[in-house]
Amino acid sequence: MQQKNEKMLLEIVKTLQKLRQEKPLIDCITNRVTINDCANILLAAGGSPIMAEDEREIDEIISISQGLVLNLGILDQKIVSTMLMAGKKAKQTGIPVIFDPVGAGASRLRDDLAQMILNEVRPDVIRGNFSEIRALSGAAIQSRGVDAAAEDAVNEENMQVCGKMVQELATKYQCTVCATGAIDLVSDGEQIFYIKNGDPMLCDVTGTGCMCSALTGATCAAGGALNGAVAAVVLLGLAGEYAAEACRKNGDGIGTFRVKMMDAIYLIREKDIMERGEVYGGELL
Amino acid sequence: MQQKNEKMLLEIVKTLQKLRQEKPLIDCITNRVTINDCANILLAAGGSPIMAEDEREIDEIISISQGLVLNLGILDQKIVSTMLMAGKKAKQTGIPVIFDPVGAGASRLRDDLAQMILNEVRPDVIRGNFSEIRALSGAAIQSRGVDAAAEDAVNEENMQVCGKMVQELATKYQCTVCATGAIDLVSDGEQIFYIKNGDPMLCDVTGTGCMCSALTGATCAAGGALNGAVAAVVLLGLAGEYAAEACRKNGDGIGTFRVKMMDAIYLIREKDIMERGEVYGGELL
Amino acid sequence: MQQKNEKMLLEIVKTLQKLRQEKPLIDCITNRVTINDCANILLAAGGSPIMAEDEREIDEIISISQGLVLNLGILDQKIVSTMLMAGKKAKQTGIPVIFDPVGAGASRLRDDLAQMILNEVRPDVIRGNFSEIRALSGAAIQSRGVDAAAEDAVNEENMQVCGKMVQELATKYQCTVCATGAIDLVSDGEQIFYIKNGDPMLCDVTGTGCMCSALTGATCAAGGALNGAVAAVVLLGLAGEYAAEACRKNGDGIGTFRVKMMDAIYLIREKDIMERGEVYGGELL
Repeated sequence: MQQKNEKMLLEIVKTLQKLRQEKPLIDCITNRVTINDCANILLAAGGSPIMAEDEREIDEIISISQGLVLNLGILDQKIVSTMLMAGKKAKQTGIPVIFDPVGAGASRLRDDLAQMILNEVRPDVIRGNFSEIRALSGAAIQSRGVDAAAEDAVNEENMQVCGKMVQELATKYQCTVCATGAIDLVSDGEQIFYIKNGDPMLCDVTGTGCMCSALTGATCAAGGALNGAVAAVVLLGLAGEYAAEACRKNGDGIGTFRVKMMDAIYLIREKDIMERGEVYGGELL
Repeated sequence: MQQKNEKMLLEIVKTLQKLRQEKPLIDCITNRVTINDCANILLAAGGSPIMAEDEREIDEIISISQGLVLNLGILDQKIVSTMLMAGKKAKQTGIPVIFDPVGAGASRLRDDLAQMILNEVRPDVIRGNFSEIRALSGAAIQSRGVDAAAEDAVNEENMQVCGKMVQELATKYQCTVCATGAIDLVSDGEQIFYIKNGDPMLCDVTGTGCMCSALTGATCAAGGALNGAVAAVVLLGLAGEYAAEACRKNGDGIGTFRVKMMDAIYLIREKDIMERGEVYGGELL
Repeated sequence: MQQKNEKMLLEIVKTLQKLRQEKPLIDCITNRVTINDCANILLAAGGSPIMAEDEREIDEIISISQGLVLNLGILDQKIVSTMLMAGKKAKQTGIPVIFDPVGAGASRLRDDLAQMILNEVRPDVIRGNFSEIRALSGAAIQSRGVDAAAEDAVNEENMQVCGKMVQELATKYQCTVCATGAIDLVSDGEQIFYIKNGDPMLCDVTGTGCMCSALTGATCAAGGALNGAVAAVVLLGLAGEYAAEACRKNGDGIGTFRVKMMDAIYLIREKDIMERGEVYGGELL
């Protein structure tokens, strides 16, 4: 486990190259809090965002898109039916569907709607914080709104146990599951990866989870579900590290952190990934 | 009046400490223009934002929240009934309700809806610019959209007269009223405080009023209505001063100001409050 | 064509002066992705934004506004009927109406709704990227979501041909048409201007088109449709140039670019426009 997975780092490099060349169009049906950040991170990474969510045009928009991101952040009576329609169309078309179950565990409504999307759409990737992933797994949780609960922090000690829960959820829904946190866990049910990039300041900005899901849409369009899910958390983790280093150097705070994080996604080079990417695991289970 | 109120400055320090320790979860039902800024300022100050507004989950979300912020910024047919439901539940639960009557005075609709919320919810804090507070007081006004009218600027000369209007509104609705401007006025009907922190650049960024209201949700959750309302305007005022100083030093504009303002909220120390907080008044009326 | 149009540059200077003095109130009915950026650029330029869109207050809000911006960015069942109501009221009142047909060409729905607004409101200015303008012209296009298609890039070679399409659309709808891109084209059907300010980084931030349309609301309120449309693209183009220069100097990316762009709109001086404004054309057709 102490050996970096160089093979996966190379896959991430290839995924980023392809993303920047092909500029996939990603439709995001996403919440109003972080919608601008989601569009901007897609552009910064090399993708092309569209935030189309009117049922009257969903078919046409999905047919010109290369990926779809569904984010449960702000609910209303209609948005979930639109997500179901878009998700089913995307699955027919064969483009990757990323699902972010924002706030699963915080209310019965969110749990129910998340299950509906899982069952009816069958997303290719589920991306949430560990509290949300735990809630989808049906484990008893103590939710703390839309942020992960302190007791759900993944660390060196509980990493294997948490990884097992991620892997089981992936097996259950035959998809890739990505649980983000201090250590990110990604599994397609067969392999499991542990990603140790990132910085605690990422938790002090709203929407880094949503941004990760949006970015996953683009990386999966370029590199497939498993590589794409790992690539997105490595890219965002590295961006967080560079931004935090810049802030600490100059005594800046969270406003500057956000700006520098977006700078880093835009500027990241292949050698940054190879030298600083902290991807472990990957062996067959 | 020329003597700083050191006792209140100490209360602000204590409020900020408690906020950072307890990380209160604040539900904001707020407008789409500044929703991201509201979430980010809550996080920067040490709170935890949730922007839940679906009536089907309001009860559950309020029951795990420590504060509720209602912001009248963008209207639609449904949002006010949701605010009424959330507000009533919050009052039952005993968590502080902050009401921001954005654009009161700009249209009959906004005046009517604001009165409905005041009467049916009985918020703990009303936070608006002085034009909005004047409109709620029923005084004839010349509104200028969502920004305060020039003739509503509070200065050393009219400060006492304006303060009286704020105090009367507080008495009428048995709550704390906070009118922000060049001089901020906060009264619970018994005491009145005059806060002279801030910088004119705060008016050149959209949503500083909304951000102040969101922040007030967290400071009131930590320090109660009166101390919390004063704390929020002092924190935002100081952040504006630091940001403006940074911009003037480097010849930067309003984009940099926003970033530095968020930095300052995140980095502010207790000694900044004690040394630079400009809180006056507070005597019993 | 190689001679700068100094007369128009002087008009832009006058327009900016008037905008900063009169601080026109601009109502924007605009999409959720970039609504905060639109409000902030209006404030940065000297205007006053209001994002009112509830039909119950539209009449009152339009009657206190000096301009109206309609942006087709995110659709729902109701927004277009509100736009029609607001647009007709604005035309009665005599304030300029700016229409941004976001994503025209990307779906049949958007094409139909755009035509409805053109025919029923008769906007004073249509502002879109060249793919969108081409779609409104009824030319066959290969759309690429909400961003301009590569084959729709305007350059020195096709500038005259593209300009003709812009001029014909302006004649057809008796309005000013502004097609933005590497070279911006503005025509009122009689004159045509070519604006060469800007930087490719403007395409790597979401919402620069929306921001341009919002800004056009304020510049048209101050300077009339034709001068206002040219002024907005020159201001945004110069802001892009200054921001890109700052980023290249310090090795910064797109996060910093956005901040510096907003700084530049706020700080721009009359001599910047006269010295660096790249406005060509303007002769009677």
